[in-house]
Amino acid sequence: LQTGTMQQARRMLNALHPAEIAHLLESMPPAQRELVWELVDPEYDGEVLLHLGDEVRQSLIQGMDAEELIQAAHSLDVDDLADLIQDLPHAVLQETLEGMDKQRRQRLEAILSYPEDSAGGLMDTDTVTVRADVTLDVVLRYLRLRGALPDLTDKLIVVNRYDKFLGLLALSALLTQDPEHTVAEVMDGASAGIPAETPAHEVAKMFEDHDLISAPVVNDAGVLLGRITIDDVVDVIREQADHSVMGRAGLSEDEDIFAPVIRSSRRRAVWLGINLATAFLASWVIGLFEYTIQRSVALAVLMPIVASMGGIAGSQTLTLVVRGLALDQVNRGNLRWIFSKEIAVGAINGLLWALVVALIALIWFDSLRIGVIIAVAMIINLFAAAVVGVTLPPLLRRFGVDPAIAGSVILTTFTDVIGYASFLGLATVVLFGL
Amino acid sequence: LQTGTMQQARRMLNALHPAEIAHLLESMPPAQRELVWELVDPEYDGEVLLHLGDEVRQSLIQGMDAEELIQAAHSLDVDDLADLIQDLPHAVLQETLEGMDKQRRQRLEAILSYPEDSAGGLMDTDTVTVRADVTLDVVLRYLRLRGALPDLTDKLIVVNRYDKFLGLLALSALLTQDPEHTVAEVMDGASAGIPAETPAHEVAKMFEDHDLISAPVVNDAGVLLGRITIDDVVDVIREQADHSVMGRAGLSEDEDIFAPVIRSSRRRAVWLGINLATAFLASWVIGLFEYTIQRSVALAVLMPIVASMGGIAGSQTLTLVVRGLALDQVNRGNLRWIFSKEIAVGAINGLLWALVVALIALIWFDSLRIGVIIAVAMIINLFAAAVVGVTLPPLLRRFGVDPAIAGSVILTTFTDVIGYASFLGLATVVLFGL
Repeated sequence: LQTGTMQQARRMLNALHPAEIAHLLESMPPAQRELVWELVDPEYDGEVLLHLGDEVRQSLIQGMDAEELIQAAHSLDVDDLADLIQDLPHAVLQETLEGMDKQRRQRLEAILSYPEDSAGGLMDTDTVTVRADVTLDVVLRYLRLRGALPDLTDKLIVVNRYDKFLGLLALSALLTQDPEHTVAEVMDGASAGIPAETPAHEVAKMFEDHDLISAPVVNDAGVLLGRITIDDVVDVIREQADHSVMGRAGLSEDEDIFAPVIRSSRRRAVWLGINLATAFLASWVIGLFEYTIQRSVALAVLMPIVASMGGIAGSQTLTLVVRGLALDQVNRGNLRWIFSKEIAVGAINGLLWALVVALIALIWFDSLRIGVIIAVAMIINLFAAAVVGVTLPPLLRRFGVDPAIAGSVILTTFTDVIGYASFLGLATVVLFGL
Repeated sequence: LQTGTMQQARRMLNALHPAEIAHLLESMPPAQRELVWELVDPEYDGEVLLHLGDEVRQSLIQGMDAEELIQAAHSLDVDDLADLIQDLPHAVLQETLEGMDKQRRQRLEAILSYPEDSAGGLMDTDTVTVRADVTLDVVLRYLRLRGALPDLTDKLIVVNRYDKFLGLLALSALLTQDPEHTVAEVMDGASAGIPAETPAHEVAKMFEDHDLISAPVVNDAGVLLGRITIDDVVDVIREQADHSVMGRAGLSEDEDIFAPVIRSSRRRAVWLGINLATAFLASWVIGLFEYTIQRSVALAVLMPIVASMGGIAGSQTLTLVVRGLALDQVNRGNLRWIFSKEIAVGAINGLLWALVVALIALIWFDSLRIGVIIAVAMIINLFAAAVVGVTLPPLLRRFGVDPAIAGSVILTTFTDVIGYASFLGLATVVLFGL
């Protein structure tokens, strides 16, 4: 009976698309995951591994023997294999490369010679090319002889005899135009190939702006190297998005939600440690005013409000600017405009909420002076938050630091320190004239 | 001379793709933006408006007169018009509808009858259909007669005489298979149509999992209603991503970085107000322990550390769970597993950093008791952070609240209150035996 149920489960599982199997595996705790992974048909292993997040993929690869891995590698397209290759153990990689025919190995090497997050790293080398001087009728007969086209082929690539890229011939043009026309007459010769060094996020933008399904990749000399397809671009967009969301909490976009406790704890400890350091910095600032607090405990009660409002206002500005940078909306030319605007917004909201906070503080502690102090401190901190929120992201970027990850920690360090220092500093001067 | 330069700018601008013009407009302060918008050729107005974020689009529409808007609306495909329609003034909408031929109006009404974020709302009704019993040769001749195919057509849709969906005929199959075969023999009859009520995020997942370019949309009876294309799916993915990032800072995903100061200030004031309320709640908790703080100011110095570490640890858990929910990785079956794991991670990091903090506090204030108090409070708060981080997102979702927006405000309210209360409460008991 047990075996029968297993057989049925195996059949149901392998009827799914590899991406769906990958999704199922990612939604399972480790013990269950390994059990289900055993049931996956070895011929799908490669495809499933490809659709998994880095972390889950690595943990499953660790449990596979060399033979299974080599088989999985051989079942993949060259561009997919290029994505997987850095996760394979060295011995497996060696044997996989040796087992490949020369053409396949050359293609793989071509892809691997470009950074993973460039057009060259995203491309597949499996292109269907035609010459410009033949008629559509010849192309139609050629395709019929050739048989099946690679997935996501919406156009053929027109090249000369030296493989130089000339233009694109859409399948729909092939189907609707007069077969007596030559390729040169019908092709789209206006669109250029994507240079292999183009960063992945720019490729994604091109695909989005021009509603592309596939696009040719060329080298400096205009020679066709391969093509990028929309499925890989969608992965880039998804990863960018995950990176922004997860990075802000100090997590990797490939984080496995079912990762073992020890591994998760270790990784998160680093982030907590960084934040602890900044928290101690804020405490040290507060410590400078111990004497003031002792004489008016109301200050200790109210001080987190100033710090927290600065953090919130600053993170709004920061989020806008970081996204603007990622979308290339923010540049040198308009940064000054954004700066003025954010300062103005900070000032208006600073004044508004300073008034509200002052009123509440006045009523709560029956002290006009404390009300005025917290109001002024709030205005200072919201002003500082706007300044830091606008200037920090371009600055971090210039130093090669990712503002989506480091931005909010650094910002809140500033707003905490400035918030506590301005509030307690003002109080020291005003209340005790020190 | 001035006019000559303008003419040149106009030519350069209108040589761009509408999506690129939109991007340019979004990267400009209002004054410049209006100037450039004036230069855009009216025949591109509709397409450009379509590619703009909601906020920028609305501001430009406000400056257009009825005639320009009606012209822009007429230049658009029906599915694109459906996206724009809610931003049009009532009079313009009325006139646009009256100026449409009956077929176009019916198509528009079909799309508008479904929610914007469903398969029906995403679909275009401009499909190319063929019958199952004809030969490929007949289809080829039909296409040549028909002329150009709609953009992003990678397959024809096979229907019966009642428009019931039967299967898909890929253009590549049409080009590579024997023309004597019938459509029925060659078509992919296994894939089902997408029901019109399917939520947009599920549609996006289908496209990602199966690497689709287009997919048919059907009603309950299996009758073909239209098709969804990958460009609209990419927009859905991009919007989902923006929503997660911007929502966390209380911003809309359509926020215009160059919005006027007053409008930006008003919108952000709401978020700051909500956060001010939670900050006062935390202050009120601190206020309960005024007497304790007065007797040991070291507590005021150290208390933000406990609160802030809880917030950081909690937001890591929250971010993971919110993303897991969005990707359907988290469900009832595995929530308990995630809960146990996050508690364990919280406990380990709680212990680790409690020790570090206790040591620093001991050295700084030369008091073992304060060291022990802060250590215990940290462990309590990191434990609470894990509990709230895991349970809050599914709970919010059940009550129809978006955890990506409300999650982090509510979480930090908890971690602040629990952090201050546990640290100051313990101190009151231990130090002063109250």
